[in-house]
This record gives sequence, C-alpha cells and structure tokens, in this order.
Amino acid sequence: MNQDTICALATPQGIGAIAVIRVSGPDTIQIVNKIFRGKNLEKQASHTIHFGTIRDKIGQPDEVVIDEVLVSLFRAPTSYTKEDSVEISCHASDYIIRKIIKILLREGARLAHPGEFTQRAFLNGQLDLAQAEAVADLIASDSEASHQTAINQVRGGFSKQIAQLREALIHFASMIELELDFGEEDVEFADRDDLRQLIDRIQKVLVPLIESFEMGNVIKNGVPTVIVGKPNAGKSTLLNRLLNEEKAIVSDIAGTTRDVIEDELFIEGIRFRLIDTAGLRKTADTIEAIGVERTLQQIEKASMILYLFDASEIEMSQMKEQETEFMASGTPYLLIGNKLDKISIEKKAEFEQNFAGILWISALEDLNIQDLKAELTRKVKTREVKSGDTVVTNLRHYQHLLQTHEALNNVLEGLDHSITGDFLAQDIRFALHHLGEITGQITTDDLLANIFSKFCIGK
Amino acid sequence: MNQDTICALATPQGIGAIAVIRVSGPDTIQIVNKIFRGKNLEKQASHTIHFGTIRDKIGQPDEVVIDEVLVSLFRAPTSYTKEDSVEISCHASDYIIRKIIKILLREGARLAHPGEFTQRAFLNGQLDLAQAEAVADLIASDSEASHQTAINQVRGGFSKQIAQLREALIHFASMIELELDFGEEDVEFADRDDLRQLIDRIQKVLVPLIESFEMGNVIKNGVPTVIVGKPNAGKSTLLNRLLNEEKAIVSDIAGTTRDVIEDELFIEGIRFRLIDTAGLRKTADTIEAIGVERTLQQIEKASMILYLFDASEIEMSQMKEQETEFMASGTPYLLIGNKLDKISIEKKAEFEQNFAGILWISALEDLNIQDLKAELTRKVKTREVKSGDTVVTNLRHYQHLLQTHEALNNVLEGLDHSITGDFLAQDIRFALHHLGEITGQITTDDLLANIFSKFCIGK
Repeated sequence: MNQDTICALATPQGIGAIAVIRVSGPDTIQIVNKIFRGKNLEKQASHTIHFGTIRDKIGQPDEVVIDEVLVSLFRAPTSYTKEDSVEISCHASDYIIRKIIKILLREGARLAHPGEFTQRAFLNGQLDLAQAEAVADLIASDSEASHQTAINQVRGGFSKQIAQLREALIHFASMIELELDFGEEDVEFADRDDLRQLIDRIQKVLVPLIESFEMGNVIKNGVPTVIVGKPNAGKSTLLNRLLNEEKAIVSDIAGTTRDVIEDELFIEGIRFRLIDTAGLRKTADTIEAIGVERTLQQIEKASMILYLFDASEIEMSQMKEQETEFMASGTPYLLIGNKLDKISIEKKAEFEQNFAGILWISALEDLNIQDLKAELTRKVKTREVKSGDTVVTNLRHYQHLLQTHEALNNVLEGLDHSITGDFLAQDIRFALHHLGEITGQITTDDLLANIFSKFCIGK
Repeated sequence: MNQDTICALATPQGIGAIAVIRVSGPDTIQIVNKIFRGKNLEKQASHTIHFGTIRDKIGQPDEVVIDEVLVSLFRAPTSYTKEDSVEISCHASDYIIRKIIKILLREGARLAHPGEFTQRAFLNGQLDLAQAEAVADLIASDSEASHQTAINQVRGGFSKQIAQLREALIHFASMIELELDFGEEDVEFADRDDLRQLIDRIQKVLVPLIESFEMGNVIKNGVPTVIVGKPNAGKSTLLNRLLNEEKAIVSDIAGTTRDVIEDELFIEGIRFRLIDTAGLRKTADTIEAIGVERTLQQIEKASMILYLFDASEIEMSQMKEQETEFMASGTPYLLIGNKLDKISIEKKAEFEQNFAGILWISALEDLNIQDLKAELTRKVKTREVKSGDTVVTNLRHYQHLLQTHEALNNVLEGLDHSITGDFLAQDIRFALHHLGEITGQITTDDLLANIFSKFCIGK
C-alpha cells in the first residue's frame, strides 16, 4: 500500500464550467479537511458529497476563500484506487485550480505522475494490468468500434479467461515440479493426457485472440484505404465525395494530385483512413514521378484498395494486369467503375464479363456512393471477429500471447516425443510467465513505469 | 419553475482523465435512471454518489455499455440550480461524451444554452443576478486580485447590502405613494428627515462602489503600464529583465524598438500589462516616427508610466519638461534612473536635488529590480480600496449604480426645495428600479438572455 497521498487535475484544461481535482492516499481526508470549510469530512460516510469552501490560511487572520466547491468523498476500499480518495469539484479557472493544488501540496500531498491513480488501482487489485491499460485506450477511443473494444477490455475482457487458464496450468506445473522432486523414481503426478487437453483448451482461446490482433489494430488505428487508378480516373473527386468536402484540388488536368492526401471517414462506426494517390502512369514530370512512387508504397501499406477506373478510357488488358498485382498482394480490393453516367450499357456488360464484382458509381454525379460505403464496411466486417468477441489491440498483449502460444506448442511437441518432466516444466513456466505478464500477475517496475507513463496526469 | 430538463458537458474539452456531464430539471432522475445500470437512483438520497454503467438500448438484445461512471445525485432544492440534478462523471473521451449526451437527449433532456444552469440558479433564487454574473468572472479570473473580487461577489458581495438598502427605500416609497392617495389632504406619512438620513446612508454605500469601478477594471483587465524614455535609455532591456525573457529585440543602436511591445507580468497577484515603446525623440525615419506617435497614444491610455532615463545622457531641463507633462496627465508615474552602475555619486545627487522619488536601477546588471517591482505594486495598492472591500468590476452594475446615485441626488435636491410627494416618488422609483436591476429583482428576458449568453455551456 502506498504511503503518500497524491493529487492532480483530472479534467482537461481549458474553457469550461467546472474542474475536478483528484486526491488519493492514506492522508487524503485529513489533508482536504484542513483546507475545507464545511462539514467535518472525517465524520462523513463514503460516496457522499459536501458543499463548502476551500480556503487558504484557514484559522489565520488573513484566511481567504479560494472557491466554493463540492467535495466527493470515497473511503477505502470502495474508491477507484481502493484508497481514501476525494474529488474536489471547483470552478474551471486556471487560477483557482493552481491555487487549490498548491495548497494541497503544502498540506502534504504530492503531485501525481501520469497514470498514477490507475497504477494504484492496479497495484491495489482493483484492475488487472490489461484492464488498466485499456483505460488509456478508452479515453483515447474516438470511434464506436475502438470504444467498444476498449470498454470490453476495461470490464474484464479476456483477462479473466486468461487468469483462469493460467490457474489450471499452474496446477499442472506444480505437479510436474513435484515429479522432479522425486527425481529418479519415475512417478507421474501430472496426467499427460489431461495436460494435453488443457493445452488444447488454452490454445483454442489464444489463437482467436492472436488472430484478432490485426483486426484490433484496424479498429484502433483505422483501416488504411488507398484509392488508386490511372490519372484522371476521378480519384480526388471520389475522395471529396466520400468526405463531403473539397479536400483535394480537383481539375481536369491529368496528374493534378501529386501528394498523398489522407483523411478520415467514419462509416458505421469504423474508421477508414482514406489515402488519395497520384495516378499510376509512366511520367516525365519528376515531381509526379515521386508521387507515383509514393502511390506504390501506399498500396503496400494499405489494408484495402479502391481501384477506380474510367471504362471509356482504360484498356481491358491493363486492368487485368493491375488486378493480378492486387491479388498477389493479398490485400482486399474493390474494382470501381467511375463516370457511370457516361458509360454505355454495352461497355458495362463487356467489363462485367471480364471482371467480377465491379461497383459502378459516379463520383461527380453522386451515384451509388451509398452502395460503395456499404461495400467498404462489409469488406471489413467479414474479416472481423463477431461483435462482442474480444479483440486484442495492444501490441504488448499480442507479443505475450504469441510467446505463450509458441511455448505451449513446445509442450505439445514434447509430449509427443515423451520428453522428460524437467523440459516440460521449463516450457510450461515460460508459458505461465507470458500469460502472467498480460494480466500483471508478473510485472517489473520498469514495465509498470513504461505502461503508466503513457497515461495523462490525473488518471 | 422550468418544465424541461437540460444537459451539457460541464468540464473543458480536451485531453484529461474524466469529464462531467451535468443534467438538471424535473425529469433528471427519471431520465438518468433509464440509461444507468446500478442502484435505482429514484430511491437514493441527495448528495450521494453511485457507481454503475451508462448503457445504450437498455433492456434490448443489443444493449451496450458506453462507460463505467460515477453518478452524483442532488435533489431539489439542495442543488446548484435548486432543481433535481445529476452529474455523470465519465471517462474524458470525446466519443463517450458525445454518446452519453446523445442518449440523454433521446430520453427527453435537451441541450443547455450557455449559462443556463446558472440562469436557473438565479431564477430559482439560489443567486441574485450580480452573484450569477460574478460566476462567469470567477471562471475567467486569472490573477489573485481578479479572483478575489469575483469570489467576494459570488459569495454575496455588495448584493446583500444593496438589497437591504433597497428594502428600506421601498418602505419610504410606499409611504409617499400613500400620501399621494390622500391627495389634497396634505398629510405626511413619510418623515422627510428620516428619508434624508436613509438616502445619505445609501449614498455612503454607493459612492465607494462607484469609485471602486476604475480600480475594479484595473484588477479585472490588468494595469496598463507604459515604459517610456529617450532612445537607448534601456527600455527594452528593462522589459526583458522584468519578464525574465528575451521578448524585445535589444541592440545598442538607438531606435531599435519601433513596434509597441506588450506583455503581462504578475507581481503580488496584480496583473501589469507592460508596454514597451519606441524612444521619444524627433526622428527622420518614417517608421520610427510612427512608433513615437504610437508611444504618445500609449501614454494617454496608460494607468501607470515608467519613465526611464540615463542620467549620463539626458538634460535636466528636458526631463523637467517631460515630468510636467506626466503631472498634467494625472497618470501616476515613476522616474527610474537606469544604468546605475555607470552613474557617479555626484550625478545621482544632482538629479535627486531636482527630482523627487527617483528609483535607481540597472536593468542590464539586475540591480534594484525587486525595489522597482515593490514600488509598482505599492503605487497600485495605495489607490486601491482596502483588501476585502467590495469592488465593482461589471460595467452594467457601474452604470446602474451611477443612475441610482443621480436619482437619489435628485431626491435630496427635491427635499431641499420641498417639492411635492409625486415628484419625490418618481425619483425614488427610478432609484429603486436601478438598484433592482443590479440584483435582478427587476429584469427583462432580453437582459437575462444577454447576460447568460456570455457564459460557457455547462455552467
């Protein structure tokens, strides 16, 4: 248990009506009581709110009112940190906030480090480490999908399941360690078939989690979606249409777009990072050539390709070549026939005979854009784990899950080859270690410092 | 009493740990209860805090958790607005905030207008109008002095006193009105000497308040302090020294500073708006000439002049001329002899014989700068009403105080000339009206709308 009492502004700085200053630690109530005129906080119940004034130099002739405040009282262990805690709700004036924090520091509190309240919540057993890490994701969440993933994790997510499986594995580990104690006697306390079944069960949990990581990243960071096509196919017009704003400079001159333009679009709670590119063609213009080069780089990094073509301009063979490239890359792609209003029925039919799944639109005339949006989300969702399932978004978790998976594969392999208990024990211990690192049952101070330093102060 | 329930984000937007959404109005508890899973809020006491989750589509198959929150419950009339109120403390994610507000709106709340919570506090009798107006000043306060003025006013300030005096005046007004009812009978219910005494008492309150307005403005907006002197007297060096930063470009070339440079300096809680100026001299350089012109404008607007001179350079007669100008302007000024380290004792003595109150410093060598700062605050404070006294900072209040003062003077004059009751009554009614406008006992919807529209949303 921490011996010192910490304080920090918990609400954002800026223009607003109220601000909340958080105090937590063993001396919280005593410290706040010294600067608060109102009821005696020592005598109040947990989860109650008290109106009064924060004062400087209380009891002295030059006692001065800093602000009228509401004090919310939380007694250990029923607070976020499981320590005695107080939230002072004051007026959102920088002067008042600075002054109150200054007085708190003078009375014995110290300024909290970034994430220190949540770190205490973790150290005092309120949250496991994966939950604590998700608190930062929750605050940063800016789309329905990223928010849903974060709140699921804060509320337990895969932590509980992993902790349970780890418990079961610990049981086997101790059995095998026991065998080792008996040394040469060749006894088997740990039933090898039961162990194999347990590991199968664990792997069945781990594999979807590991596989969810790519999707999780997409949810957290958005789907990089590149719009490519020959010059003047209408890429920038499409981008503008999707964004409903004139982001890219549009002109009739082929090769207008040289930079890679990026913007975000939310469709059904999924974030798409749309990347407009320079048209794909051989060019003598040096700057444009650099643009084409960048386009190729963007295609490599993208999670989704929108290939835009003008059926009246493009040669079928050229498009086939392009499609083959996309297929080879393994990245999902959409073939989009633009300028629908100018294409004859015969032309359309000709293309549809040669290419599957063409979506016909007109970016300029706003035709079938809703269909395109629907197709975009469908493409993402079919790759997505079912809604409500747990998704791993944290690289640290992903790495430990991978290493656990590998260690458990080694155990299975060992069982197949009937290797001795000491080798089995080593791999199991390795797996236990990595599972424990996810939930924080095994941690180092450095790891904690690193994780919580990414939080904002006051959380 | 308002029939609708309002909600708004009360904390600033931006990066932080927690955000607070405020809800107030008759349906508050019912609305929040519909989206909150935890205890039944209808059954909870006022001033209690409840942990739980805010959910969308509660009770439906696709019920979804938006956030884990703390709900603070305030029952009418013991809340800020005197209505049933709830504060939802959630994670400070824009997504979560938007989502919660959206659900509140769907369940029957509406978005609050700027200042509407405080407006309700006023309309429901929690605060008078002058107090309510001071809430906005309090939030905007950024110096000790401006903060102290605002918090005094929020906590009652001159409102109570004015309301009491107004009551007494109403008594006389009704007596005189009664006389009028008796028409020709020439009775006097209102003792003229008592009335005169009451008005004297009221004027004794009004006059210092009116006079405090100039000071109040200085406190609220800072003391415009202009640094003037001949070219190369060291004005920019002094500004930099005071600000502890290299704000102005310093060089040995006379005439370096052409623009008017402005910055703020807090000394003992008072804000000084320091204005560096182009040196005062006749010049052939057009741009510099404009600079000198601006300097003269700045002197006119200043509340304090710092006249910096180099005793080894300036002629005594020139400085006398300058001092006479300052004296004529009525603006307090300080004569500051710079480059103290380079001035002989004889030279100093010579200047001190001719000018009173010279402060010797060296801006470059950092000599006596603390003395200068102390003298600056002393100058302000000797003009200041005593600490703890009430200061008027609001132009609206100032104007009504002035008009009350004038109306009461008319009453006194009327009494001197023994004018008839109906004329007395008219002036008294006029005084009552303006006193009532300050505390909000007399208001119009337009006035209220105008006052509260300057607040931020959520207050």
